Amino acid sequence: MATEHVSRFGRFELQVDGPHSGNPFIDVEFAATISGPDGSVRVPGFYDGDGVYRLRWLAEVEGPFTFTTASNARSLDGITGGFTVGSAAERAHGPVRVANTFHFAHADGARYRPIGTTSYVWTHQGDELEEQTLRTLADSPFTKMRMCVFPKSYLFNENEPQLFPFEGDARAGFDVRRPNPEYWRHLEKRIDQLAELGIEADLILFHAYDRWGFSTMDPVADDRYVAYAVARLASFANIWWSLANEYDLLFEKTTEDWERFAAIVTANDPADHLLSIHNCRDFYDYSRPWITHASIQRQDIYKTSETTNEWREAWRKPVVIDECAYEGNIDQGWGNITGEEMTRRFWEGALRGGYVGHGETYVDANDILWWAKGGSLRGTSPDRIEFLDSILAEGPTEGLEPIPLDWDIPRAGVENEYYLYYFGFNRPTYRRFLLEPSRSYTVDVIDTWNMTITRLAGVYRGRFRIDLPGRPYMAVRLIAVDD
Amino acid sequence: MATEHVSRFGRFELQVDGPHSGNPFIDVEFAATISGPDGSVRVPGFYDGDGVYRLRWLAEVEGPFTFTTASNARSLDGITGGFTVGSAAERAHGPVRVANTFHFAHADGARYRPIGTTSYVWTHQGDELEEQTLRTLADSPFTKMRMCVFPKSYLFNENEPQLFPFEGDARAGFDVRRPNPEYWRHLEKRIDQLAELGIEADLILFHAYDRWGFSTMDPVADDRYVAYAVARLASFANIWWSLANEYDLLFEKTTEDWERFAAIVTANDPADHLLSIHNCRDFYDYSRPWITHASIQRQDIYKTSETTNEWREAWRKPVVIDECAYEGNIDQGWGNITGEEMTRRFWEGALRGGYVGHGETYVDANDILWWAKGGSLRGTSPDRIEFLDSILAEGPTEGLEPIPLDWDIPRAGVENEYYLYYFGFNRPTYRRFLLEPSRSYTVDVIDTWNMTITRLAGVYRGRFRIDLPGRPYMAVRLIAVDD
Repeated sequence: MATEHVSRFGRFELQVDGPHSGNPFIDVEFAATISGPDGSVRVPGFYDGDGVYRLRWLAEVEGPFTFTTASNARSLDGITGGFTVGSAAERAHGPVRVANTFHFAHADGARYRPIGTTSYVWTHQGDELEEQTLRTLADSPFTKMRMCVFPKSYLFNENEPQLFPFEGDARAGFDVRRPNPEYWRHLEKRIDQLAELGIEADLILFHAYDRWGFSTMDPVADDRYVAYAVARLASFANIWWSLANEYDLLFEKTTEDWERFAAIVTANDPADHLLSIHNCRDFYDYSRPWITHASIQRQDIYKTSETTNEWREAWRKPVVIDECAYEGNIDQGWGNITGEEMTRRFWEGALRGGYVGHGETYVDANDILWWAKGGSLRGTSPDRIEFLDSILAEGPTEGLEPIPLDWDIPRAGVENEYYLYYFGFNRPTYRRFLLEPSRSYTVDVIDTWNMTITRLAGVYRGRFRIDLPGRPYMAVRLIAVDD
Repeated sequence: MATEHVSRFGRFELQVDGPHSGNPFIDVEFAATISGPDGSVRVPGFYDGDGVYRLRWLAEVEGPFTFTTASNARSLDGITGGFTVGSAAERAHGPVRVANTFHFAHADGARYRPIGTTSYVWTHQGDELEEQTLRTLADSPFTKMRMCVFPKSYLFNENEPQLFPFEGDARAGFDVRRPNPEYWRHLEKRIDQLAELGIEADLILFHAYDRWGFSTMDPVADDRYVAYAVARLASFANIWWSLANEYDLLFEKTTEDWERFAAIVTANDPADHLLSIHNCRDFYDYSRPWITHASIQRQDIYKTSETTNEWREAWRKPVVIDECAYEGNIDQGWGNITGEEMTRRFWEGALRGGYVGHGETYVDANDILWWAKGGSLRGTSPDRIEFLDSILAEGPTEGLEPIPLDWDIPRAGVENEYYLYYFGFNRPTYRRFLLEPSRSYTVDVIDTWNMTITRLAGVYRGRFRIDLPGRPYMAVRLIAVDD
């Protein structure tokens, strides 16, 4: 049973019945070669339980395609067929990839701005809370969700999940040779629901906050798990792979392990989804060729997104600061910055051509903190983050590029066309500007906290002075106009 | 004419009439050997105009003393006499010196905490404004004033001074071979007035903001100027020498020049006053043996006093951050931080065992900005700085030493006796503590912005949790008590 008509950026799926004796997850190899206008590609399939095998593929090119399966199980081998890929659905733009060195775009060229948030184990919370999380996301500015495959055991994360990625249970132990298809189907449903909301799933394959043993499986089990996840999920247009959250806290894993996982992902993902790895303290070597973008946790309590320029130059890749601390009021220093400070960090990063991520950790009577479990948002930064994104949406289509000044504040834009200045915690009552006198500019005084844009009367050129309100968190936008 | 009875930490002065033909500033050498209970010391004198020569010395030890002059002028040579040094006046504690590696104390052992402010050319503004500045200082928490010998030409510093350190005027030029005694007597009066207020004069010998030529004298003139300043002022107990403000902007001077000036100061200052040099961008090599303490201008827009620990370890000397940016609202990024941010920087530095300095740059209709000219203070940080100092005054008498935590916030104090935690821009609603269970502590919740100290009921020991208000700028103080 195979999909006959796939829309571009949609999912082709082949379903075949096969052997269910022994352990098909391990015993049976199953893949296909899919051929179309641009050549052939090998696509791995996977066992979905109950004797059912599936093979999925993300269609990116319109036209006629054929497939031929290969398997060590006679009933799965040499199956052939054809399907057509038609035009994309209205809101389908395909997977996100790096564009203009430091930025992102969908496969169809549509610009993509990551406005990330984090809710590590939101898919482990049961339907009621998970559906609330989806409703919250629908009303939020976020376009990327950072989330884990494995459940989490940590402060504020004491509850036991209903489903696990492997067969077994916490009492009897888990059989890491047998994935639990029910778990994975649930995860897939949630990832598809994110896609409907236009949200990318930045999926974390490993993390250290574990009481079930998933962080300390042996290398054979690790490799099988990575390959299984990729076979199931690479056809989802909105997947990003994150090898680990805080890779350096997984003390039993070595660089060789991470490099091997990366090789498994890239060998088994025909769609070449974005791929990175996230630090606790030391950065992984982001210059490694398989890493598409930096996925940063701050290394300094005080200076976070202000370092974006240096990181861009170091690796010449997009800089995504997934953890710059969280808006909240818990005891931990990483989880109690104000909405003002979170918003400031977003702006400081954006003006330097990077992308900062959000998270929220407000004390809750039921320990439902957004950063871990989802639910509702109560902070003050999301509205301001949405306002920032509206400014970026009206800015250069190639993404905001820094145009450094000699000192004091960041500036970004396109020379002689568009300038954005951000004053952060400084609060001048005026500012002098000196631009090439060849062009005139409209001037917008932007209050990034109160979310107002005040267009000044007239146009300005050359050397001029703008009055400012003497409050923190102001920006100035200059847009060139033809006189 | 010589002082016969000097109080300890007071000033011995010998006045002798001598030659006034030619240029006595250059032609006449004049010094004395002063001998007392602890041995002999060479003390340079100086020409004060009108045929009058003076020789001053800061008395630090009680007892009988004798002096013998030496000069290339017969009338000044071989003059002898005696005087006695009695007990110190009530509020006289003597010059400030380094104590406990990273801190300061007066010569009599009295603790000294530098709470610096900056008003670079306050003594060049005429009596009315200068006296207003003194009244402002009398009501302020400040115990150190950073100030220049030379006038300043810069933004907000357009006015012409009434007195110059050399003979001449701006139109005809200055004769750098002839100091202007009237100028120096005025400066000395102001320094003495600071002493009456308990304020140290951190006197800057060179700076680059100059339209009169004082920053570009030739080396011979530079050396004579340094020696003259030291001869006149080394007897003032409240003098600190700062070779330069932003030495690296004096592009015509080399490291050899600064090293030579340092040698002139140390050779001619029997009191061994504190001596440093202040950067614009690159630090001078603070490990140089003649440098008693670091006198720092921030090297980073965002992270300033948070780096104090590293600087202490680098040089093993007191860290004084004389410029961390100024509270104000001018256009320049160095001059428009909020009172909250200034106060935060003071606390961040203090908790790391350093000393942050204040300055104020509010736009003023008459261009009277405190940082340059003095006058009145209008900012919100001085009251909070005074509050911080009251906390320090009640803290360890040796000075506040950092006791770093693993992460998130600074802590300081004395193990098992006194702990101060500062939460800065973080705003937890509670905090867990884990201390040695052998002692009990009183707990004070300190709001560093609203300047309140709330003593919690009872005592705490071992592992405990404290509720906090969820606002930024809080601190917690734990003081050990005997159960």
